[in-house]
Amino acid sequence: MFHPLFDKHRALLEQAQAAITRRTHWLPYAANPRAYGETAMDDGKAAFEAYRGAQFYLDQPDVQGRCGDEISPYGLPLAISYPSCSSDGLIAAAKAALLPWVRAGIESRTGICLEILARLNTRSAELAHALMHTTGQSLALAFLSGGPQAQARGLEALAWAHREMAQITQQAEWQRNVSQRLEKRFMVAPLGISLVIGSATQPTWNAYPALFASLATGNPVIVKPHPTAVLPLAISVAVARQVLKESGFDPNLVSLLASNPDGPVARDIAQHPEIRLIDYAGAPDFGDWLKENARQARLFVETGGVNCVLVDSTYDYQALLKNLVFSLCLDAGQLRTTPRVIFVAAEGVQTPEGQVGAEQFGRDLGYALGKFVEDPVRAVELLGAIQSPATVARIAATGELAEAEAEVLRPSVPLSHPQWPAARIHTPLLLRADARQRALYMEERFGPIAAVVTTANTAESLALAETTMREKGALNFLVHATRPFVRQQAEDVALRAGVALSFNLTGAVLINQPAGFADFHASGANPAASCGMIDAAFVANRFYFSQVQQHYLPPSSIDWVIEV
Amino acid sequence: MFHPLFDKHRALLEQAQAAITRRTHWLPYAANPRAYGETAMDDGKAAFEAYRGAQFYLDQPDVQGRCGDEISPYGLPLAISYPSCSSDGLIAAAKAALLPWVRAGIESRTGICLEILARLNTRSAELAHALMHTTGQSLALAFLSGGPQAQARGLEALAWAHREMAQITQQAEWQRNVSQRLEKRFMVAPLGISLVIGSATQPTWNAYPALFASLATGNPVIVKPHPTAVLPLAISVAVARQVLKESGFDPNLVSLLASNPDGPVARDIAQHPEIRLIDYAGAPDFGDWLKENARQARLFVETGGVNCVLVDSTYDYQALLKNLVFSLCLDAGQLRTTPRVIFVAAEGVQTPEGQVGAEQFGRDLGYALGKFVEDPVRAVELLGAIQSPATVARIAATGELAEAEAEVLRPSVPLSHPQWPAARIHTPLLLRADARQRALYMEERFGPIAAVVTTANTAESLALAETTMREKGALNFLVHATRPFVRQQAEDVALRAGVALSFNLTGAVLINQPAGFADFHASGANPAASCGMIDAAFVANRFYFSQVQQHYLPPSSIDWVIEV
Repeated sequence: MFHPLFDKHRALLEQAQAAITRRTHWLPYAANPRAYGETAMDDGKAAFEAYRGAQFYLDQPDVQGRCGDEISPYGLPLAISYPSCSSDGLIAAAKAALLPWVRAGIESRTGICLEILARLNTRSAELAHALMHTTGQSLALAFLSGGPQAQARGLEALAWAHREMAQITQQAEWQRNVSQRLEKRFMVAPLGISLVIGSATQPTWNAYPALFASLATGNPVIVKPHPTAVLPLAISVAVARQVLKESGFDPNLVSLLASNPDGPVARDIAQHPEIRLIDYAGAPDFGDWLKENARQARLFVETGGVNCVLVDSTYDYQALLKNLVFSLCLDAGQLRTTPRVIFVAAEGVQTPEGQVGAEQFGRDLGYALGKFVEDPVRAVELLGAIQSPATVARIAATGELAEAEAEVLRPSVPLSHPQWPAARIHTPLLLRADARQRALYMEERFGPIAAVVTTANTAESLALAETTMREKGALNFLVHATRPFVRQQAEDVALRAGVALSFNLTGAVLINQPAGFADFHASGANPAASCGMIDAAFVANRFYFSQVQQHYLPPSSIDWVIEV
Repeated sequence: MFHPLFDKHRALLEQAQAAITRRTHWLPYAANPRAYGETAMDDGKAAFEAYRGAQFYLDQPDVQGRCGDEISPYGLPLAISYPSCSSDGLIAAAKAALLPWVRAGIESRTGICLEILARLNTRSAELAHALMHTTGQSLALAFLSGGPQAQARGLEALAWAHREMAQITQQAEWQRNVSQRLEKRFMVAPLGISLVIGSATQPTWNAYPALFASLATGNPVIVKPHPTAVLPLAISVAVARQVLKESGFDPNLVSLLASNPDGPVARDIAQHPEIRLIDYAGAPDFGDWLKENARQARLFVETGGVNCVLVDSTYDYQALLKNLVFSLCLDAGQLRTTPRVIFVAAEGVQTPEGQVGAEQFGRDLGYALGKFVEDPVRAVELLGAIQSPATVARIAATGELAEAEAEVLRPSVPLSHPQWPAARIHTPLLLRADARQRALYMEERFGPIAAVVTTANTAESLALAETTMREKGALNFLVHATRPFVRQQAEDVALRAGVALSFNLTGAVLINQPAGFADFHASGANPAASCGMIDAAFVANRFYFSQVQQHYLPPSSIDWVIEV
């Protein structure tokens, strides 16, 4: 079914579909804020300021009151209030909107989703400020990862969804013999209503693939933002509703379920029988709760894990240290892709300049970390602020534990932000533990916390990394090794553990910045995530092909019994 | 990676991939036994006879003893014994076989799977006899559905699997700028070990899609046959092992976990942490148990449900009745696709000859059924024998219930088989109930049992059909209606209930014979099945793309810190 918005964005979709096949570098949306106009960031700031101390406008059904309690990790009061709607009201509205959306067909739905992305792209600067003051990311990183990169992930999901939806005919003439000639019609049909539970640290980057995959495949979407990071998803929902309305569809195909932090709303709606798809990225406790309780829904859950680094040997020791420091500092460790534990054999690291002992490696990494964060103006741009006070408490508790039972290679210290004196900024805590101290490193400590773990030898490092990643989950595995047999073994470990493997990363290629259209963010093969991202299963699990068949002509009563 | 077996079967695979897109009539394997040679059926019988009273040879590890207790529903003693291996032994052997199979690549695995199918095809007659004397199907239907049609389903799964595996590059050059140039390698990686739990009534037809989808995507497969239908899957496993061995792979990539009926083996192995995929088709109680307990695995569960028929109006009343009778008799209702309940409004059925009242419709259907089964020679070819004594008991209990609380339109009677005097053959029980007697029709009564349910009007029929199929599950929905508004409403019901819809079937097109490469057997959108069959998700959920990346050259220490 032709739709003008599909035609408008067809070229971009085709490029995206080539990109997911080719998996080379491709940026669908400009990464440089200046590409959006000289005043774009200032305009975005003004738009963001207009939300502060005001009522966020969303024309949703069954409004029960207003809610909102966001506090910027940079200390800026937000005081934004959102309409608080009942789950039942949003579900009923979504059900009422469903059938026309399904019957609209693949191209209409995909075209409208592409238009929503295009509109979101024009709002990138506004979203960047909203993200900065909810997630704590620095403005530059909030813009990049929460704007163009998040939109690219939405597009990536759409590219997969359209490819999977379009791969069978919509009508077939099935004929076995003269009396058996059937018309078969096929239509993409949704599973039901999709619930997207927003994360606190990367609300748009995490939600867009789910939102667009579900919506394009015909499922109405209810977005439940994290109570501390509502604004970026509220803006996104408002944009989606506007485009749906302009296109003649019911805006309740996408709605926002905002609530105060003390509300049990997520757990209520997650168990509703009409909710058939749930996407969640966040802490493992709620992920486990979903797996235990939301049994009526298909789950797409990403809870992170203990990403491992193994340091065996290197071509360039200084570059290795710098790359690791950057990865540990990026977003102050508040990414599910951040390395959590670094295994090094007691004999140390082979470098072009000779062997560096394990103890020395730990001191060198601590020193390099210290050097980087000693310039706060530079450091805060990479670190950003800490999203949650719970993370600060976790740093403190882990520091005390390390002091008591292990060794602190570099303590975490608060840092002053040049523009935001009240900002919650802390440098990474780096500790050292022995291989046997599993309690110190074999669990995810979300935030700027990492452990260097000394092992007997690289074989033990490999075995421990495998155990850690298989049992606790992991998204990636970074190995510094120049020796072929270590690399071969690392490949086997990565295969068995279901993690993306990187060798010898240096320079600006960071293990915790997966490249859109090239890298798979999760495998679904270990506890870090229940699904691959973004791949065919991520979209194909959201729909089925419904089917209607009938004889071409009102059939005559052929005496077929004779034929048998 | 080139493989001679892939090359050998490439043309067939390409035809199959065209067929799953086009969804027209296509038979990859000959349906007529004569196409396999004039003596094929006799040769197959001789091969089958050779298994009787003997030890089935399978060179598997960790044999603990022997087991086997199959009894033919036709009364023929089988007395075949199978090696009984421990779950742990088969799992350990599968793990040991895994990595070389994964590294062999897409084409090698697909080629070997295609060769296994080709070998199975040459064994169709032998399999037909094995199926007849375990499932109770008539020889002709056992040949067709358990031979060429089951193999076609395996091929259909392979076509989807290959398409999904091959859609991304295996190697990419990713370059962002001069210092960021990475080689990325991608490989299809399996979830782990796949457990295929065989059904008693259609062991090959149900297992082949799972077996081939899992194996082609890199997962070793352990086949756990139903204790009463081991032989067809034992032959299939032996063929697979032979081809694997000839191709230089570990035969333990496919193994048979046989056990006696009293063994708790299925429940034990289903919860093993190494089992990451479980396919099961069968009774809902074990399906529910799997959902509750086998939480470490992705489940592909098909448990059937209450397939509904709605009779509103027809172009040809006699043809309608004949078609329904055939569907009710096919395999004596022992298919998950068999219609279970027929809704008709009190005002009856519009026909070209005038209105037929609901009571009269029930009598007419009962009479047509009686006419068909009054010739046992003809009837047993369609009915076959009853696989399980539990089904016979269910017929009797339902008959008593219907006599007490409702009405019996046609009682079930035993039938004598001309060649097999001890065969367990029973004609269908047809009862009539009122819409309010939900306990009589709103649950699956597996076997030759169906209910005609009288409703107030067609609107109530539609509503009850929707409720039944949404709550109890259903695979298909057959509607006889000439009136456009009824058809439109039926399409909405089918969409909301997630069932395949057929209008006005007459002649030899039966609702319970889904056409390979054209029809989707299940949607996964209602309780009848947890997944669509056979579609992209059915295969894509079995693998992920594993990834290895590294810089193209051992990188120099570019002072990238300045760039930030």
